[in-house]
Amino acid sequence: MNIYEILERVKREELSIEDAEKILKKLPYEDLEFAKLDHHRKSRAGYGEVVYCEGKTKEQTASIFYHLSLENDNILGTRASEEQYEIIKAQISETDYDPLSKIVKVVRKPIEQKGLIAICTAGTADIPVAEEAVLTAEFFGNRVYRCYDVGVAGIHRLLNHVENLNQANCIIAVAGMEGALGSVLAGLVNKPVVAVPTSVGYGANFGGVSALLTMINSCANGISVVNIDNGYGAAYVASQINRLVVEASE
Amino acid sequence: MNIYEILERVKREELSIEDAEKILKKLPYEDLEFAKLDHHRKSRAGYGEVVYCEGKTKEQTASIFYHLSLENDNILGTRASEEQYEIIKAQISETDYDPLSKIVKVVRKPIEQKGLIAICTAGTADIPVAEEAVLTAEFFGNRVYRCYDVGVAGIHRLLNHVENLNQANCIIAVAGMEGALGSVLAGLVNKPVVAVPTSVGYGANFGGVSALLTMINSCANGISVVNIDNGYGAAYVASQINRLVVEASE
Amino acid sequence: MNIYEILERVKREELSIEDAEKILKKLPYEDLEFAKLDHHRKSRAGYGEVVYCEGKTKEQTASIFYHLSLENDNILGTRASEEQYEIIKAQISETDYDPLSKIVKVVRKPIEQKGLIAICTAGTADIPVAEEAVLTAEFFGNRVYRCYDVGVAGIHRLLNHVENLNQANCIIAVAGMEGALGSVLAGLVNKPVVAVPTSVGYGANFGGVSALLTMINSCANGISVVNIDNGYGAAYVASQINRLVVEASE
Amino acid sequence: MNIYEILERVKREELSIEDAEKILKKLPYEDLEFAKLDHHRKSRAGYGEVVYCEGKTKEQTASIFYHLSLENDNILGTRASEEQYEIIKAQISETDYDPLSKIVKVVRKPIEQKGLIAICTAGTADIPVAEEAVLTAEFFGNRVYRCYDVGVAGIHRLLNHVENLNQANCIIAVAGMEGALGSVLAGLVNKPVVAVPTSVGYGANFGGVSALLTMINSCANGISVVNIDNGYGAAYVASQINRLVVEASE
Amino acid sequence: MNIYEILERVKREELSIEDAEKILKKLPYEDLEFAKLDHHRKSRAGYGEVVYCEGKTKEQTASIFYHLSLENDNILGTRASEEQYEIIKAQISETDYDPLSKIVKVVRKPIEQKGLIAICTAGTADIPVAEEAVLTAEFFGNRVYRCYDVGVAGIHRLLNHVENLNQANCIIAVAGMEGALGSVLAGLVNKPVVAVPTSVGYGANFGGVSALLTMINSCANGISVVNIDNGYGAAYVASQINRLVVEASE
Amino acid sequence: MNIYEILERVKREELSIEDAEKILKKLPYEDLEFAKLDHHRKSRAGYGEVVYCEGKTKEQTASIFYHLSLENDNILGTRASEEQYEIIKAQISETDYDPLSKIVKVVRKPIEQKGLIAICTAGTADIPVAEEAVLTAEFFGNRVYRCYDVGVAGIHRLLNHVENLNQANCIIAVAGMEGALGSVLAGLVNKPVVAVPTSVGYGANFGGVSALLTMINSCANGISVVNIDNGYGAAYVASQINRLVVEASE
Amino acid sequence: MNIYEILERVKREELSIEDAEKILKKLPYEDLEFAKLDHHRKSRAGYGEVVYCEGKTKEQTASIFYHLSLENDNILGTRASEEQYEIIKAQISETDYDPLSKIVKVVRKPIEQKGLIAICTAGTADIPVAEEAVLTAEFFGNRVYRCYDVGVAGIHRLLNHVENLNQANCIIAVAGMEGALGSVLAGLVNKPVVAVPTSVGYGANFGGVSALLTMINSCANGISVVNIDNGYGAAYVASQINRLVVEASE
Amino acid sequence: MNIYEILERVKREELSIEDAEKILKKLPYEDLEFAKLDHHRKSRAGYGEVVYCEGKTKEQTASIFYHLSLENDNILGTRASEEQYEIIKAQISETDYDPLSKIVKVVRKPIEQKGLIAICTAGTADIPVAEEAVLTAEFFGNRVYRCYDVGVAGIHRLLNHVENLNQANCIIAVAGMEGALGSVLAGLVNKPVVAVPTSVGYGANFGGVSALLTMINSCANGISVVNIDNGYGAAYVASQINRLVVEASE
Repeated sequence: MNIYEILERVKREELSIEDAEKILKKLPYEDLEFAKLDHHRKSRAGYGEVVYCEGKTKEQTASIFYHLSLENDNILGTRASEEQYEIIKAQISETDYDPLSKIVKVVRKPIEQKGLIAICTAGTADIPVAEEAVLTAEFFGNRVYRCYDVGVAGIHRLLNHVENLNQANCIIAVAGMEGALGSVLAGLVNKPVVAVPTSVGYGANFGGVSALLTMINSCANGISVVNIDNGYGAAYVASQINRLVVEASE
Repeated sequence: MNIYEILERVKREELSIEDAEKILKKLPYEDLEFAKLDHHRKSRAGYGEVVYCEGKTKEQTASIFYHLSLENDNILGTRASEEQYEIIKAQISETDYDPLSKIVKVVRKPIEQKGLIAICTAGTADIPVAEEAVLTAEFFGNRVYRCYDVGVAGIHRLLNHVENLNQANCIIAVAGMEGALGSVLAGLVNKPVVAVPTSVGYGANFGGVSALLTMINSCANGISVVNIDNGYGAAYVASQINRLVVEASE
Repeated sequence: MNIYEILERVKREELSIEDAEKILKKLPYEDLEFAKLDHHRKSRAGYGEVVYCEGKTKEQTASIFYHLSLENDNILGTRASEEQYEIIKAQISETDYDPLSKIVKVVRKPIEQKGLIAICTAGTADIPVAEEAVLTAEFFGNRVYRCYDVGVAGIHRLLNHVENLNQANCIIAVAGMEGALGSVLAGLVNKPVVAVPTSVGYGANFGGVSALLTMINSCANGISVVNIDNGYGAAYVASQINRLVVEASE
Repeated sequence: MNIYEILERVKREELSIEDAEKILKKLPYEDLEFAKLDHHRKSRAGYGEVVYCEGKTKEQTASIFYHLSLENDNILGTRASEEQYEIIKAQISETDYDPLSKIVKVVRKPIEQKGLIAICTAGTADIPVAEEAVLTAEFFGNRVYRCYDVGVAGIHRLLNHVENLNQANCIIAVAGMEGALGSVLAGLVNKPVVAVPTSVGYGANFGGVSALLTMINSCANGISVVNIDNGYGAAYVASQINRLVVEASE
Repeated sequence: MNIYEILERVKREELSIEDAEKILKKLPYEDLEFAKLDHHRKSRAGYGEVVYCEGKTKEQTASIFYHLSLENDNILGTRASEEQYEIIKAQISETDYDPLSKIVKVVRKPIEQKGLIAICTAGTADIPVAEEAVLTAEFFGNRVYRCYDVGVAGIHRLLNHVENLNQANCIIAVAGMEGALGSVLAGLVNKPVVAVPTSVGYGANFGGVSALLTMINSCANGISVVNIDNGYGAAYVASQINRLVVEASE
Repeated sequence: MNIYEILERVKREELSIEDAEKILKKLPYEDLEFAKLDHHRKSRAGYGEVVYCEGKTKEQTASIFYHLSLENDNILGTRASEEQYEIIKAQISETDYDPLSKIVKVVRKPIEQKGLIAICTAGTADIPVAEEAVLTAEFFGNRVYRCYDVGVAGIHRLLNHVENLNQANCIIAVAGMEGALGSVLAGLVNKPVVAVPTSVGYGANFGGVSALLTMINSCANGISVVNIDNGYGAAYVASQINRLVVEASE
Repeated sequence: MNIYEILERVKREELSIEDAEKILKKLPYEDLEFAKLDHHRKSRAGYGEVVYCEGKTKEQTASIFYHLSLENDNILGTRASEEQYEIIKAQISETDYDPLSKIVKVVRKPIEQKGLIAICTAGTADIPVAEEAVLTAEFFGNRVYRCYDVGVAGIHRLLNHVENLNQANCIIAVAGMEGALGSVLAGLVNKPVVAVPTSVGYGANFGGVSALLTMINSCANGISVVNIDNGYGAAYVASQINRLVVEASE
Repeated sequence: MNIYEILERVKREELSIEDAEKILKKLPYEDLEFAKLDHHRKSRAGYGEVVYCEGKTKEQTASIFYHLSLENDNILGTRASEEQYEIIKAQISETDYDPLSKIVKVVRKPIEQKGLIAICTAGTADIPVAEEAVLTAEFFGNRVYRCYDVGVAGIHRLLNHVENLNQANCIIAVAGMEGALGSVLAGLVNKPVVAVPTSVGYGANFGGVSALLTMINSCANGISVVNIDNGYGAAYVASQINRLVVEASE
């Protein structure tokens, strides 16, 4: 019901002024005091609710999952601890947990995977962040192609994958240390590259700032950047792009 | 000609070994000593060559434009000075210059504009960066919707545009100072938001770092970031996304 | 008219659906393309529109002042250049300019000054920022007490003023270099202190960051901080506080 | 006794020179060697003594609480550990502890709560900092309205609360990550907003610096900022404002 | 007159209560509105008033010098511009200016120079800062030994001076770039070293931060640091030390 | 086989097109999914594969060592934990571990040591980083001269070693805190100095940034810098230099 | 023996050329491989050897103390752990340890304390750093006056001590958070102030950087700064000053 | 004459004690008061004196060149201004100036060029820094191979040059913006890479810090880094390496 419809119904006396006011004011969320759940988000943004678990108590996390599970088949939690997983699992038996990426998820309705997103890492130590992106992208209904340990220290390893990467609608470049993978990828492919700096490295990497600056300053075209270690955020952007293309071609 | 075709032609003796080797090795660029022009980029990346003018001498810029103009109808230059424009114009009469965005361009073949990219600014002082994005996006064949001065200090100004913004395949959010526009937009629309921090502001804005950090740390979904004042870069990413959707729907 | 009233009028057929929709959607601003003027802000926030002039072209600034002057008696512009002033003055003869604080203002309706705000500086070089605060506070209808050059290097100069300062409802502390004035003031008075770090100093003052950090880390109670050199912002906060007290006592 | 009174009494020989000198010099604090307790602060600043517990040994904390409890009914301790609480509790049975906000307090005389302060958070993980503000504000005699998890990623959740927030004399905005809540609030309400950046987030949030910069650079009016995670400091400022208004209206 | 004396006089009725109160409250400074001159500082700190000229208008500087010249024979101004000098000179004919160090001074009573301070620079480009220290130290009555261009890139140049340097009561080490001179000096001499980082250098020297950090982190003993380019501040500290020794030996 | 040879063999029909394509595309690495091992690197870069162990799981590290051990006699691992060592040792009995430098290595074929590299530290606490460099350099076939605890706080300790240091083809300077050792060494010797800042120190050393800036800003000639604590990287560069000289003189 | 004496003895054949060369070259230190002990430092710098224990293994620390104890009556160790203390104690029974300041010391010959150094802290949490300064200063033969918890949040506590502080030859100001104590002290006393920023605080104190910047940017005269938490370094500088004055007055 | 020879001559009475002392103490430099010229450096370091002109007055620069020209055939000056050049030229007619690299040089004795150093840039705007390196390297007697505009945005341009680059004994990688060229080069060649970050770029490049961090954090082997824009420093290191190899092979 949009504003016009509401007003029309008021005029037609199908709707009392009091009810119209309630609807106009009614919040599309459920209030748990410590959190406000957004059940309408799927219709608004196209994806189900995702819970960022870090910094929430076990009890808060469990309560949020429980309330979401009453209205959603599938729920994704990022940066979840083992303890958070266990208390959720105790309530919702379909809960799964991946300790590498710290993704907890409830999938009760199968998710069809369409289109293609490629996810690359510079090194082995970047894989946890990449897997956060992979599991998120799959949860959002995207097909994923993994291409790990192809950093610029041995660029020939990457060159061999260029053709495959160009099949994807979006490429996620996950790299720590100097983070040059994003630039190199963007120079080689013709699809948008979403770069994820990671905190992998030491010394003057400043917990990922070095890679972040490299990516933000890239002189290559077609690269944009998300926060350090934010595999989830990159997957969200890539999902939006992939979905737009998939929907346009349907 | 891909590798397979080359090898086949060698086998069929349609191509001498020496020529095949030359082709395999031949660089797809023209060497001006101080610059290596990439005439094949259009076929590789889908867009014509763009010249980043800052830091190049007038003579270098003019020479690069001249050589590109022999093989390209349309050329775009970013961050060009008045002086660089004049020396290019002296050689190529179809050259145009926009002093606000510092874009210089040669357009000798009309550019059809398809799909839609929305470009928003938080304030009036962010417009030069936004216009760099607008002119770049139009040069790359995208239709553009401008939505300026809708920053979060008066959020009701933005709320009125949400419906229009959701028509676009990609939204560019240009904002300086605290740079919150990106987050707010990403929370309101369901299309990828490319955020451009600007150096607008003073004091602890650190030449745009404040806005950059705001955007990188956004807790909203579907936002990725380019360098401070990099309207061009945002437009490139948005063009890739818009083109993918337009091509998929054709 | 609030939502309930609108709905009621619709029901009573005093208002057509179309008009009600317009009102509900109507933006309380005027759109100049490069700027969206907020004529309703006075009723919403209690003050007239203020124009941040930096980064706007002369023409944009003049146009904004012109349109505002049609609906407002008094207008304030901050960080205005001599050139911007002159073009405004050419259109609106009541325009005044203070080159020290870079404040341009149009005052056509006398402003009554109530309550009290005290504005202190650590040194002489901090005065331009302090004067931005003074002129802003006076424009917003506050009485102002100036207390300049009372920095901590000679703390006896400050101690003599404590009694006077405690008459004010809010105290603005303007200081560069090490910026300790804020802490010392907050330890001596029992009114809220709004601290303004300034870029005065050299070397490791980092353009005001040193003073900003001092103020943000203050172990004194009752101090909050605005941006470096942001005299306007401090005056706005102080005005809100002073007005609340004045209105409560009326 | 002010200076004039002391001098008069000396003249009237009601006070010996030696005693007058002692009084003039006498420090309004008790010296525990490792700490100097300020028993007169309540009369000077209007609030009882507050103990910042972090970095003090258990024994120091207990000793400070003990000496304060001899002259004060109510005492507040911030950033207290479980261990510090237990040793205080052993001496003063009326001691309470809130592990979320790390507030320890002794309340032996009921505290009347007047006026209104609103305290908002962007997310659930910001609640511990907000609760430090809530408990401090209540200890200082302010009525508090909580409004949690209304961050800009879903701005419709916030819009519903604007009317309530405007009832308060001061609004505290607690937010980590990009910290845009402060700007958005200040754009929507017409009361002073005290913004508290939190260290919630990861990567380029730099332990709260990102949110701090966002808030300091806010282009909204009426916002000032305290240190990262400094719920106490924000509550102190808000209390001063609320008390000024309450007292003015009495 | 100390407090006891004042009280005694009041009792003896040699001093009225009103006068006593005035004296107790009377500020030892002259108020020029934009500056508060501290004529008693010489007796308090042992040196005449010094004027930090940067950021003051020509008129303010001249006025301050004029008022000081009525009560002081000698006045020192630091970071003075050519223009500031000229307007002071027009009023006080004994004014001298050194464009290298930007020191302006009025010396009408000869200054005896005692003890010894050594002032070293790493390179030639550090000399302006060193000369600010030299002229300040001489103004404050210290004998000075210059030792320039003895940086660590050719450490043999420095080793030859060690014996001379140990004659001084304090050594000032002025160095930009990597700023290692301070550490090396402190390792070679047994007198306090006051280190002055300079902004000499480029790139990652960050305007002197590199040298500042080197000096602050020095693993050598007996080194303390002042602000970047703060020759004046180092000379002040060195003067205090030298004077203490000279006075003790008299 | 280079491109020409491959093409020739295709023409001579000694090689099928399909096989030629495979060879041209074939990657010179082994793919373990989470890592891509580069068995050809020795021939390309002149050294065996080195494994950066930090951030890899025990299982990944063991698997990488196992696969490398099938094709390499000697393997080096840096930043290895005790746990990683033990699981490798369980598979490859010739494995050795040095807990100080965290170097794990498999040496099954004796390594001849040639030329000379000198490795100096400023203090005792810098030794772990220096030993990483020593063991790496020896693994790569260089003779090493250790010279520890010769920092600038007591420069006479260093001067005694200058003659010995000049025997080396490259000198590695390892220093934390102010990191001046690199500059001093480069001023005293005439061989390339590779400087390694360490995180040794506290406070404003910022985990090694202070030493890094000192070294990067060195006004001495012949110094270049690697990452904080990167003993391995310095040894690699020094090995390249030493090997070039050794090979040239053979 | 200086160079002249050595040469004279060679000429008089009292010293063989070989022996003279040895003496000229002989290092005034003992080489433990991992450390080079400087037994002559006392004669050179006037104080005994001090051991910086952090980052050294227990065994290294014990060995260094053992070798020093053979030639020195008194030894000081800073930043020592409980474990390091115990292993030293096992070898040298006169060893004492203060867990607050982490000072370990061997005092077998009584130390006469002369002159006066005052050591102030802003808060209770700064005491560990202050005590490192106190114990160091006493070890170096200085009399010490403690003045703790006199920070600027309650400046009246400090004002009462000014007279006492001016008795000292040097004042050490230890402060975290905003670190304003240094400036305030330097404005009140006329002796050199050595300021020690501490890491006490949270949020934007950046581990002490805030206090460091405040102190470095102080607009007060007569203040110089050492590293964050470097109580030892401040005591060393203060000792040099105090000793110079004491010796001059003897 | 080394120490032994001096002593022997003293003993043989060929040298007076006084003369021997003079020689032992005599500094191998000429003292111009503001500068100490190091005429022996060529014998010590193998190269002639180089003058860093920035921050020196015209007169100082000219005087230094004049005194050096009396004892040296060839002199190099870096970062020289047009004005400095002209005043030198007036005295020494063989002076040449290159405005791009800001190199001024006097070459009166031809310089033979041996070995090979390769110098690469990422872009055209990096050429001024590269040319500083080229002219320095040639001045020091190295043959140079230029390879410009081969940045990673179009990596195929670089791949074509790998074979040539491996001919060099050392490769200098000059790059601004994200500075990935260093890593990519080090991954492709097997010679030491000296990386020079440049200040080319804008926004979050922070005047070259971004490129510096990329290079310092490089995960490629065989790369070390010099200061931002320090073409001279890179050329010095490369010259040392090239000379060592050339001398070893002679």
